[in-house]
Amino acid sequence: MISGERFIVTYRLTGEEQEAYAKARDICVEQTVEYPAELLQPGFIRDEIVGRIESFTKADSAYYADISYAVESTAYELTQFLNVLFGNISIKPGILVEKLDLPPGLLNAFKGPRFGRDGLRRLLTVTDRPLLFVALKPMGLTADQLAELAYQCAVGGIDIIKDDHGLSNQVFAPYEERITRCAAAVAKANKETGHSSIYVPNVTAAFGEITERARLAKAAGAGGLLISPALTGLDAMRYLADDDSLALPVFSHPAFQGSYVMAASQGMGIAHYALYGQLSRLAGADAVIYPNFGGRFSFSRDECRSIVAGTQVPMGHIKPIFPSPGGGMTLEKVPEMLEVYGKDVVFLMGGGLFKQGPDLVANCRYFRQIVDTLS
Amino acid sequence: MISGERFIVTYRLTGEEQEAYAKARDICVEQTVEYPAELLQPGFIRDEIVGRIESFTKADSAYYADISYAVESTAYELTQFLNVLFGNISIKPGILVEKLDLPPGLLNAFKGPRFGRDGLRRLLTVTDRPLLFVALKPMGLTADQLAELAYQCAVGGIDIIKDDHGLSNQVFAPYEERITRCAAAVAKANKETGHSSIYVPNVTAAFGEITERARLAKAAGAGGLLISPALTGLDAMRYLADDDSLALPVFSHPAFQGSYVMAASQGMGIAHYALYGQLSRLAGADAVIYPNFGGRFSFSRDECRSIVAGTQVPMGHIKPIFPSPGGGMTLEKVPEMLEVYGKDVVFLMGGGLFKQGPDLVANCRYFRQIVDTLS
Repeated sequence: MISGERFIVTYRLTGEEQEAYAKARDICVEQTVEYPAELLQPGFIRDEIVGRIESFTKADSAYYADISYAVESTAYELTQFLNVLFGNISIKPGILVEKLDLPPGLLNAFKGPRFGRDGLRRLLTVTDRPLLFVALKPMGLTADQLAELAYQCAVGGIDIIKDDHGLSNQVFAPYEERITRCAAAVAKANKETGHSSIYVPNVTAAFGEITERARLAKAAGAGGLLISPALTGLDAMRYLADDDSLALPVFSHPAFQGSYVMAASQGMGIAHYALYGQLSRLAGADAVIYPNFGGRFSFSRDECRSIVAGTQVPMGHIKPIFPSPGGGMTLEKVPEMLEVYGKDVVFLMGGGLFKQGPDLVANCRYFRQIVDTLS
Repeated sequence: MISGERFIVTYRLTGEEQEAYAKARDICVEQTVEYPAELLQPGFIRDEIVGRIESFTKADSAYYADISYAVESTAYELTQFLNVLFGNISIKPGILVEKLDLPPGLLNAFKGPRFGRDGLRRLLTVTDRPLLFVALKPMGLTADQLAELAYQCAVGGIDIIKDDHGLSNQVFAPYEERITRCAAAVAKANKETGHSSIYVPNVTAAFGEITERARLAKAAGAGGLLISPALTGLDAMRYLADDDSLALPVFSHPAFQGSYVMAASQGMGIAHYALYGQLSRLAGADAVIYPNFGGRFSFSRDECRSIVAGTQVPMGHIKPIFPSPGGGMTLEKVPEMLEVYGKDVVFLMGGGLFKQGPDLVANCRYFRQIVDTLS
């Protein structure tokens, strides 16, 4: 009935030793049987289904518990996996998901990113420099205005041109009209420049609309899909990544996802490493967007480094993916970012690109030139 | 192009007055155009799309900003509505969504709960007492064992008998086998007792499986659907609630949702009132499960009272729904809970029900008797 294979979650637990250990024991029950432990008879459920403390150690003034669960408890579904990982205990204080260690029997249930770092580089024909990524904005522009921006960005040498994550199906620039014109604009620019830029529409949408938006994107010639998995459910991203009829790279946007990491430094939620790294990969993202250190958001340099580590730590056949720091990024920061991230990074430049000067093509070329020169 | 109708979000902001006001101004831009404000020309985008501070006040040593947004910015989708409400700013410190004020032009885009309090009472033929709710567990039991528990609970007079939220499609009790047997067991009990108990399977599942699970549930004779919207995306719940071919009450489970409220007392995330009350209603839940005060979770009595307020505050045609406190609830707590919640509540009894004694039918009857006597 059960393989004996188990996956391990490392939890960071606050409190003194006794309290932290009590939390670890509680997690074993809460995340599985949620049943009075004293009523469980010896046997399969008590011995296999209930979580098991594999180790309990102190480091950096916190306690860490490695807790293992039967792979079968996940039903090999991302939703139920997340539920075992952090379902009910998301409502309990002082528990942080630090990292995951997944055995083949569970990893094999997931395809992971279709492209990953190597695949995305091949698609974009960029071998040895950071990739350049911009967003079409502001919301309120018409489809034609957005397409004109997309054209200019592609002419300017940007690799990936995405919808701003707030562009959905608003009356100002209805989805199908917008994506058709933007994809055509980027294709036109590619023909002129010989580049392989891609247009990436936002397919974050109502539950019943997501697959249709993705289908329309593919039909229009989009080169990737943007989705905010905290808005749609993480498994919607996996579903799109797995779809062979799409076969498009997937870009994960962090909107609505912040609450999982904002209390991480206080020992609650999910660590940056696990959320933006391991879980995003498991859910099929080829690149994961998150706020860069030193921008208008609050991530520290160490948190950003931990995200990079999570995007590339060995996870069986699950490919490494691109970290994509963005948010208030300016051209002046590129040298410092290159130092921290190296070349395997997707630089997402938002509003800062428009600030540089009135000529968007020139701004893009300047962005590209800085990256070409420095990397 | 735009109706002029706006919805209002009240944010609680930490920091001194100047800092809090700067946050409010930042939210107006971040949640809409995400574009350098100084580059926006006078006109439609600057004047209508960018958020607008409608009021800024101090109360209880915090600052509150009422910020309005054009209803069109939501594209009338729950996903994009959540994005405007709290997308990017979920990654910024010191911002809490306190409450929502939605105009008819936005409310009309949502059906809300199909049943609500009155509808669920009619369905269960219970007019004037709290409803009784239990969960089938532990994970690891077979479909037959779970069905036997379901039968006993229904015979014992429980109104709503749900899957534990961790029951998915595990090999121990595969979904279709489980729901077929459990639904049949409850139907058999109803025939014997004359009650109108319902069986509520968990349809939280992979993105592409949710609608099929719900369809199978309906076909098997289930009386409602359980879903954990933080695992599936909140809009998956709305989709199920809206489906006329199902026409089943929907029960919202808080698994994986905790991170939104766990830092609320520190001024980050979404307030209990807004999340478990207003947003759950907008997303179609007929009853919202959350951890009761004084249990093994961390919600305070005031937070629970605020949830009740959010489940019944007037919201146009969106019906009031049942608060369903659970989590470590024991029979001894029923009198105190009646005092706090009154009769319009669904009491969710989990593991505590099994602790009472070895005879589950007797335990259920005792639970029912206490509630009947006291209410």
